[in-house]
Amino acid sequence: MPQTLLEGVKFDADGLVCAIAQDVQTLRVLMVAWMNAEALQKTAETGYAHYYSRSRRKQWMKGEESGHTQKVHELRLDCDGDAVVMLIGQAGGIACHSGRESCFYRVWRGGAWQTVDAVLKSETEIYGQTKD
Amino acid sequence: MPQTLLEGVKFDADGLVCAIAQDVQTLRVLMVAWMNAEALQKTAETGYAHYYSRSRRKQWMKGEESGHTQKVHELRLDCDGDAVVMLIGQAGGIACHSGRESCFYRVWRGGAWQTVDAVLKSETEIYGQTKD
Repeated sequence: MPQTLLEGVKFDADGLVCAIAQDVQTLRVLMVAWMNAEALQKTAETGYAHYYSRSRRKQWMKGEESGHTQKVHELRLDCDGDAVVMLIGQAGGIACHSGRESCFYRVWRGGAWQTVDAVLKSETEIYGQTKD
Repeated sequence: MPQTLLEGVKFDADGLVCAIAQDVQTLRVLMVAWMNAEALQKTAETGYAHYYSRSRRKQWMKGEESGHTQKVHELRLDCDGDAVVMLIGQAGGIACHSGRESCFYRVWRGGAWQTVDAVLKSETEIYGQTKD
């Protein structure tokens, strides 16, 4: 029988589930973060990605400071219910706090982690003094 | 300065890092699992995805039982060093233990998690009685 939003999800001991954001057009993986039940509900209800920050211990909407919101086109759950993938439209084309398109901007090549993606906008330009 | 494989990675309190496998051809996200330092090293050395099973408390090579190995074409690390994305070639076109292409076969639609992807091969056909 189909399950409701929270029934289907197996939150971990900290009440979190792994959440992957993938660009709906390019299919590039842009970031991975965490959601608690509230963040998942807000994501489903509003159609915009919400996460839970483990360091700040609070739920937040992606882009609330930077403007780089993520509009959710599809939300999928994995077989054991502890991870979701979202196909998202990335406002501004920047998901990473570093000002790059994707957080995955380092590639393992020639025995080192090489930074291969350009900064599209400086952190100062995005946030002033703060980050999200 | 570029960092060596393990220097760049920020393992969590359990010594693990989140690992996403994405199909190198279709760019579909096939699965997400965990790696410890040994699994990450084996992955980089052999060019085939290795993971750490939290339930079985051991490192394993994807496909060691099923034959559904994952040949790594690219390995990327995220900005805070606690997640990797691999572009992989999926042997047999099946990543999920359920016999589906991807573990993310349930979509949130119409107020329920709907199973939308077909089983390509039964679990019994893949494993006999066991899973990986």
